[in-house]
Amino acid sequence: MDIQITPIGMIKTPFLHKENCPIQGVYSPESIGTVELYKEHEEGLKDIELFSHIYLIYYFDQAGEIKYVRSTFLDDEEHGIYASRHPCRPNGIGLSIVKLLERKENILTVSGIDTLDQTPLLDIKPYIPRHDYIDGASEGWITNLEFREKPTARE
Amino acid sequence: MDIQITPIGMIKTPFLHKENCPIQGVYSPESIGTVELYKEHEEGLKDIELFSHIYLIYYFDQAGEIKYVRSTFLDDEEHGIYASRHPCRPNGIGLSIVKLLERKENILTVSGIDTLDQTPLLDIKPYIPRHDYIDGASEGWITNLEFREKPTARE
Repeated sequence: MDIQITPIGMIKTPFLHKENCPIQGVYSPESIGTVELYKEHEEGLKDIELFSHIYLIYYFDQAGEIKYVRSTFLDDEEHGIYASRHPCRPNGIGLSIVKLLERKENILTVSGIDTLDQTPLLDIKPYIPRHDYIDGASEGWITNLEFREKPTARE
Repeated sequence: MDIQITPIGMIKTPFLHKENCPIQGVYSPESIGTVELYKEHEEGLKDIELFSHIYLIYYFDQAGEIKYVRSTFLDDEEHGIYASRHPCRPNGIGLSIVKLLERKENILTVSGIDTLDQTPLLDIKPYIPRHDYIDGASEGWITNLEFREKPTARE
């Protein structure tokens, strides 16, 4: 079964190259971007401004070679692609949680953005602490890792 | 731009009909399901068992008519589709956080599952509190709502 997906808009950010794109939004809370829905989707944003945070689901259209097991930006060990958020993955679907600063018609201004500029947007969902906060969840292989800068020359 | 997506596996649950499918996994922590990746994706699960919770990204293949503004299962007001998690949405992408109980080769047993049986799986990502817990996030239009049973005869 193949599924046809059509972008609903575009994410615009200051990050033109992979090298300066943040690893996760939590490490770049000050980075600002805009989420521009195509006009025909604007009606679907009704009440979005009531939420402080939203999920963006998008397409890693600039991703490189897919590997099932690979090292990541956070450490040098090899992990399965489904045990990491690495962009080079089957189906190339990305997920970010961003802070919603403002809505003007079909354009959302957000902070904590960690995608490349011109990333195709597939969906928006509200972030709802009651549904999405898991008290006591483990951090897997990330548990004892400190944040580090992205290694150079690594996809 | 159209994007081609191919399921990486299948989610099997006790929920054969929409009527008895939970609204959100948090309201059905005892519901058990299995996530069966196709064999060629098994290698990508390396280290997944180190995480207590995972995101499932899947395809609402049984969803009905898409409406940009509609009432939901949680209240009777109309909200934009992007301000809700309603399944009938453009691109039909679903997102759930489940507890990972066990992995055996390509099969994950999970709890807190809220999808229909035989739902096509598109991706798995680890749930990482450090990245995914937003302290103080608002709950938008859900703020003062109590949980209720799913209204009957409503898609």
